[in-house]
Amino acid sequence: MPKVFEIISIGNELLIGKVVNSNASYLCKKITELGGFVRRITVVRDDLDEISSSIREAIARNPDYIITTGGLGPTFDDMTLEGVARALRLELEVNEDALKMIKEKYQAINEQLTQHRIKMAKFPRGAIALKNKVGMAPGCLISVSSTKILSLPGVPKEMEAIFEDFVESTLRSELSSTKFLEESLFVFGIKESTFAPVIDEVRKKVPEVYIKSHPKGAEGEPSLELHLTIYGEDEQIIRNKLSEASKLLEEKVIFLGGKLAKKS
Amino acid sequence: MPKVFEIISIGNELLIGKVVNSNASYLCKKITELGGFVRRITVVRDDLDEISSSIREAIARNPDYIITTGGLGPTFDDMTLEGVARALRLELEVNEDALKMIKEKYQAINEQLTQHRIKMAKFPRGAIALKNKVGMAPGCLISVSSTKILSLPGVPKEMEAIFEDFVESTLRSELSSTKFLEESLFVFGIKESTFAPVIDEVRKKVPEVYIKSHPKGAEGEPSLELHLTIYGEDEQIIRNKLSEASKLLEEKVIFLGGKLAKKS
Repeated sequence: MPKVFEIISIGNELLIGKVVNSNASYLCKKITELGGFVRRITVVRDDLDEISSSIREAIARNPDYIITTGGLGPTFDDMTLEGVARALRLELEVNEDALKMIKEKYQAINEQLTQHRIKMAKFPRGAIALKNKVGMAPGCLISVSSTKILSLPGVPKEMEAIFEDFVESTLRSELSSTKFLEESLFVFGIKESTFAPVIDEVRKKVPEVYIKSHPKGAEGEPSLELHLTIYGEDEQIIRNKLSEASKLLEEKVIFLGGKLAKKS
Repeated sequence: MPKVFEIISIGNELLIGKVVNSNASYLCKKITELGGFVRRITVVRDDLDEISSSIREAIARNPDYIITTGGLGPTFDDMTLEGVARALRLELEVNEDALKMIKEKYQAINEQLTQHRIKMAKFPRGAIALKNKVGMAPGCLISVSSTKILSLPGVPKEMEAIFEDFVESTLRSELSSTKFLEESLFVFGIKESTFAPVIDEVRKKVPEVYIKSHPKGAEGEPSLELHLTIYGEDEQIIRNKLSEASKLLEEKVIFLGGKLAKKS
């Protein structure tokens, strides 16, 4: 079974439509490619109650990982780690490793620590600080029963940098037993509703492969993307299943008078 | 008080990172501009349990509106309305208005109704069908206690078309008493952590205005976007509050030796 992830994206900017949630997309793509399974994304405001209750709710669903993004910075509305602490009923305290990382960053540019800078080192008790190579605020990792909570900054470059380090140090080896493969078939000249029974048929023959149709062209000639995905332990076996399903779909497209293009 | 919205985005493609959730951003932007408040976005897979439990959880938080996107089409994994019905413990049945809309669409292109096409008319008992001018699947509206649940297709053009109609017919009049204003100041040459105490100060003087700083330039000269937002009943009052906060911030930027650009 693949490891289960939940993502909690924190920030008003996401809920007023100012910023598209590309951080969640990035994480979903990376996690899926590594063989993990993202079950849910929750987007909440910079609000302590919302942050802590969304984390508590996610923990209750017992995923292997919860990844939060946003709210690690120096301003009043950066309150993610306070939310994590509250959800876990832990004290918030200055994490010495985090403080050292922040101190070194500001020393390197001849700046002093201020109250707002020290704030970025306030972690739930027992958490581990993760180096931020790009920006100032360290990431934070803490475990609760069988769930690991990884808190990353909201600035995409910083989020990606800490996540990449975490993939190399931890995630790749934990997820390595599950593989994920995908393939897309582009179908022209057949409507989604016409093709729906074909998908049902192919799914019955190759139930391991998930087949999702995405209608594309709105006007004129109908066009569909068939997106095939599969998870499994043995890459050769799932590769064979994928091409089996793909071939069955291709035959049907031709039979129904459609045209095909392929991208894998 | 502004009306509270929750968005539930449904689709595996969002959780494998294949598609960025631009539908949610579109809705957040529109709702905010109309004076509504989006409290939460939940993204779930094409999974009946996940869909129905996320809807049930949202209902328990008692928003004025829940808007779902995706999962209204003809394929096996389009199961949003089944999820809504299950969450509300209602029967799923063919909605005669929805069926008529679908029938007319297919008649116009000389196609028959099939089981998969009729599926798009299966609504929770008591729901209202909403015309889809762009695609085939009608939207669905149903109320439960004080919450209205609006289900829209996942194809952006179709989702936008039904939402726009709904804005004109219902939402604009319901939300009209609350106004939303925003303004951005771009600050160059001051770090976010340096500016954080200034935001605290201005917030104390003009607490109605929410001030969020977004760090921009990673390398070289630091750069910040200060995004100011305010909700209120009287447009003149909130406009004055916004410019009061904006002026205070501008003075501080100059005082700290930074440079300014403005966009409203």
